[in-house]
Amino acid sequence: MAGYSIAEIAEALGAQVLGDGGLTIDRAAEPADAGPDDLALAMDPKYADGLAQGRARAAIVWDGADWQALGLLAAIVVPRPRYAMSGLTQLLDPGPEIAPGIHPSAVIHPDAFIGTGAAIGPFVVVGRGARIGANARIASHVSIAEETVIGDDALLHAGTRIGARVRIGDRLIAQPSAVIGSDGFSFVTPEKSRAEAARETMGDAGDAKMQSWTRIHSLGSVVLGHDIEVGANACIDAGTIRATRIGDGTKIDNQVHVAHNCIVGRDCLFAGQVGIAGSVTIGDNVILGGQVGVVDNIFIGDGVVAGGGTIILSNAPAGRVLLGYPAVKMDTHVETYKALRRLPRLARQVAELQKAVSKAGTSD
Amino acid sequence: MAGYSIAEIAEALGAQVLGDGGLTIDRAAEPADAGPDDLALAMDPKYADGLAQGRARAAIVWDGADWQALGLLAAIVVPRPRYAMSGLTQLLDPGPEIAPGIHPSAVIHPDAFIGTGAAIGPFVVVGRGARIGANARIASHVSIAEETVIGDDALLHAGTRIGARVRIGDRLIAQPSAVIGSDGFSFVTPEKSRAEAARETMGDAGDAKMQSWTRIHSLGSVVLGHDIEVGANACIDAGTIRATRIGDGTKIDNQVHVAHNCIVGRDCLFAGQVGIAGSVTIGDNVILGGQVGVVDNIFIGDGVVAGGGTIILSNAPAGRVLLGYPAVKMDTHVETYKALRRLPRLARQVAELQKAVSKAGTSD
Amino acid sequence: MAGYSIAEIAEALGAQVLGDGGLTIDRAAEPADAGPDDLALAMDPKYADGLAQGRARAAIVWDGADWQALGLLAAIVVPRPRYAMSGLTQLLDPGPEIAPGIHPSAVIHPDAFIGTGAAIGPFVVVGRGARIGANARIASHVSIAEETVIGDDALLHAGTRIGARVRIGDRLIAQPSAVIGSDGFSFVTPEKSRAEAARETMGDAGDAKMQSWTRIHSLGSVVLGHDIEVGANACIDAGTIRATRIGDGTKIDNQVHVAHNCIVGRDCLFAGQVGIAGSVTIGDNVILGGQVGVVDNIFIGDGVVAGGGTIILSNAPAGRVLLGYPAVKMDTHVETYKALRRLPRLARQVAELQKAVSKAGTSD
Repeated sequence: MAGYSIAEIAEALGAQVLGDGGLTIDRAAEPADAGPDDLALAMDPKYADGLAQGRARAAIVWDGADWQALGLLAAIVVPRPRYAMSGLTQLLDPGPEIAPGIHPSAVIHPDAFIGTGAAIGPFVVVGRGARIGANARIASHVSIAEETVIGDDALLHAGTRIGARVRIGDRLIAQPSAVIGSDGFSFVTPEKSRAEAARETMGDAGDAKMQSWTRIHSLGSVVLGHDIEVGANACIDAGTIRATRIGDGTKIDNQVHVAHNCIVGRDCLFAGQVGIAGSVTIGDNVILGGQVGVVDNIFIGDGVVAGGGTIILSNAPAGRVLLGYPAVKMDTHVETYKALRRLPRLARQVAELQKAVSKAGTSD
Repeated sequence: MAGYSIAEIAEALGAQVLGDGGLTIDRAAEPADAGPDDLALAMDPKYADGLAQGRARAAIVWDGADWQALGLLAAIVVPRPRYAMSGLTQLLDPGPEIAPGIHPSAVIHPDAFIGTGAAIGPFVVVGRGARIGANARIASHVSIAEETVIGDDALLHAGTRIGARVRIGDRLIAQPSAVIGSDGFSFVTPEKSRAEAARETMGDAGDAKMQSWTRIHSLGSVVLGHDIEVGANACIDAGTIRATRIGDGTKIDNQVHVAHNCIVGRDCLFAGQVGIAGSVTIGDNVILGGQVGVVDNIFIGDGVVAGGGTIILSNAPAGRVLLGYPAVKMDTHVETYKALRRLPRLARQVAELQKAVSKAGTSD
Repeated sequence: MAGYSIAEIAEALGAQVLGDGGLTIDRAAEPADAGPDDLALAMDPKYADGLAQGRARAAIVWDGADWQALGLLAAIVVPRPRYAMSGLTQLLDPGPEIAPGIHPSAVIHPDAFIGTGAAIGPFVVVGRGARIGANARIASHVSIAEETVIGDDALLHAGTRIGARVRIGDRLIAQPSAVIGSDGFSFVTPEKSRAEAARETMGDAGDAKMQSWTRIHSLGSVVLGHDIEVGANACIDAGTIRATRIGDGTKIDNQVHVAHNCIVGRDCLFAGQVGIAGSVTIGDNVILGGQVGVVDNIFIGDGVVAGGGTIILSNAPAGRVLLGYPAVKMDTHVETYKALRRLPRLARQVAELQKAVSKAGTSD
């Protein structure tokens, strides 16, 4: 690997160099693991010991570190260390190896259009009328169905599945086996179903007959904005009549499920295994922790934050911070669970009071 | 697209035409988005404004709508609008484009049998002794292992994985990367494991030794009935000795997991991310909301309905409507959570009573 | 199928033969389903009726069974029946059919190394510098990226995705569409995000601005020990700087998500749909039931057992048995839920006490 000089890295991060800016490094490493050609990441004083254990000659250090006393020949100081990780890792990421051009085994429909600068791997299939922007990197075994349009600079990892008539902006990243544009899960019975009945009455399916399900087909496809990432084995279903839509900059982790007809805003973050049922509307900058569930046909306002495992069963106003099943405000959840832990004691206190009051009554 | 006349659509839906039945439409649309060649879907009076915003000349309208006053040239009235969506979307769904015949890149074992009317896409693999019924539509990258039998009219989307010796009825629909017939997750230790000990004692793993796991292989495969749908990235594991079985008409959403040895009835509906552990028996017409979990070796009766996120830890009798973790009757859950929200207040009331009673005692 | 004699099976299980050890069987079956050439599995007296219904001539029976009275010609008795299932099913599992050698359609990089005895199916892709040990069985559509090293005796089912620079020990089993080495889900904002703010204050995202997310790339890949199994559609993300690591003998079920930077010990068992957030450290012999969630940056000690659906939001000491959301000791959970079910009654009791005390006060 060619490596980078400390000065180059500092420049990429907009940061200050201390010591020998001409020193070159091959890769980043944790301080204790770092060899002489590694850049140690020691953005916090707690890493001082690690630096002593490792053999790094250069490091990104915390503000105020005595880098020379730490045995370094060069150091970089950054104002917000976590943010610096972004620039640094982007610089050092070699990206997946996909040979330039189109692999001879790929099956590209003669009426598909592939932009300039593409690298398309083995066993890729691109359907009729699909249009893929410039500089696409498409790994092996990806399939892109008919009439789908993808913007510039897409990176599709192995086995990504994109359905028909999907519209995607620039800079999409799809992790392995992500699925965009699968059919929505929408079924109906000739007469009112047990699920509809149970919902209306909050708990009684009543006499609703057992019936077979008839399929509602998905004609609406999916529209994704720019700068979207979709995780491994995540799924985004097509809408029924209009498209399922996700706004610019939204990031979706592994095994997330976004059902048909959802409208998601921009710059949201959905962590692993989040499940969003059909026809949910989600605002901008919404953050859903791992395994959060959202029931169908509700509204989640801008800036809502939900902790891991939260099950959201009703509308959430903008800015609300949620936790629990069913979801409540995080501080309510904390207060309730404190009370819940004291509940067995409370029950004993009530029993004692009953005795005392009953005795007092008797003695009257 | 050729389009359909309003009369043709009404006939397909068994519905009544008002106005110009000869008008043709290309696709369905939401009222506000509809152009002059679209059929607006306005089955509820709340869509009247949308119709005014859009440019539809034809619509499916609510019963009693004054279609002429709404500016329409033609209208269709349906008795149960949601059910009509099924017929309408089926009519208008072009289906995935898979060229008739077998793509030259597909690897079909010479001892496999493919029925008449098949359309098999690029990079499909069909194993020894597999038998696939008439009119199969198999998209790219699908694999079907040895001795598996699939009925007529199957639609397998890209990347579907079907294991060995699976038996499937007619009209299977599999969404992208669905997995049918993966190995069950079944491991055993030479002596009693910590999990077995914790279960028996409800909470104490005791002195159970830490041991390594030995694999129990899955010899039992999977049997699916007719009219089953399996969602994207969903998994159905093979049974250990006998097959994992799913009855006719059951629909399974994205990322659902059905473990080894489960027996599922007919016409069930499992929403996204449902997880069913091993050896569970589920009746007919059971509806499980998103992210519902079912612990192993229990029984779920006919017609059970469980709301989103419910964790079912014990047998559920037929007809029960469930919610919560652990699952309880939905009305019990509602009552309990009301009480839980009032719990901090209740604790204050008990503290005041203690003071009052103690004071009363003192004053005696 | 050639079949096995009862004596051969007994020898493989280290068990005792009763009756005709020369009798041969083709496969294992449940007692009621067994035909004359099947080995019935009747390790418990409750299967006596099943044996009577079926036509088995040979069976594995419970200790003390009167095998001749049950109509058998041969029987095997095993000390720990569940453990015997392991040896028996391994013996009878034919394994997936993958032709020896490398299928002509596979794309193996000239600088990749494939060990002796390999069976590699159609449409497999192996990248530059990858090294695969002896006796690999790699089913169709698998992709293995550049510089990845896999030990001996691997079994990779169809559609397995392995990223770049992954290190894997011997005897890996990967179920269909398992993903190893996808990018971690790690994003940062230029200034403090709403999620960071909500966490610090336990519930108030305050004035934290809405911002766009910048990506932290994953440079750290994945290291897996020996004897690991990864389920269908499961995902193991690459680490940021150092590797995500999983110890020898750990078994991972379908749709499990292990996020970036996790360190998992040996002989753990993660059931279906478990989700483990980033930078979690997990000890040895940890057992997580289905749908368990683990929040990021915490520690789970050796031998922890968590029941299905448990959401672990804080460190768990070694040996702890957990249940609930948030996770508490299993016996605490049981006690709390008993009290919770009695809570509506408790509230009525407090109301009555208030009346009694108020009346007593009035009568003073």
